[in-house]
Amino acid sequence: MGEVKHLVVAKFKEGVAVEETLQGMAQLVSTMDMVKSFEWGTEMLGEEMLRQGFTHVFILTFNNGEDLASYLTHPSHTNFIGTFQAALENALVFDFPSVVIKPPA
Amino acid sequence: MGEVKHLVVAKFKEGVAVEETLQGMAQLVSTMDMVKSFEWGTEMLGEEMLRQGFTHVFILTFNNGEDLASYLTHPSHTNFIGTFQAALENALVFDFPSVVIKPPA
Repeated sequence: MGEVKHLVVAKFKEGVAVEETLQGMAQLVSTMDMVKSFEWGTEMLGEEMLRQGFTHVFILTFNNGEDLASYLTHPSHTNFIGTFQAALENALVFDFPSVVIKPPA
Repeated sequence: MGEVKHLVVAKFKEGVAVEETLQGMAQLVSTMDMVKSFEWGTEMLGEEMLRQGFTHVFILTFNNGEDLASYLTHPSHTNFIGTFQAALENALVFDFPSVVIKPPA
């Protein structure tokens, strides 16, 4: 098995300081060596997303399932999750081994 | 603006030939030069996803928003979308400029 991704699609509560949450997440990830890469973004086109109110996507990449498991169970992560969940109205979480059909050139 | 991602989270209908749909998608992407990379996966952990029944995640990466737009409006894509949507019970679609907080080492 190759890389494993941890994907979170989020809808923040009204009035939440989203920037602060994003900074907290960036800080968390910077201290966690088992996180291979981290990127995020906000919706720019999709009507689906706008309809259901999801606005943010977060993608963390790990070298393998063991690194993902050690991240998910790490105290820094579990502490952060409390703050993060308090800021969210709704979220979807997906963990999946990445099957690369077309690698970047 | 850097890379732009097109993310689809899908729940297939019961009895659908998922493998055929995946092959069709791989074939489509292989013919579309503006798609920089393509990966997908199936859920392995998340209770959220299992609860809501989403099982597959597809991530296409483009160099910029223009390449994404040319993909979305390409006849090969719009043709494929008909087949794809017929196989789906539910889907979320997200298009977002990727903000890289932690690049791969």
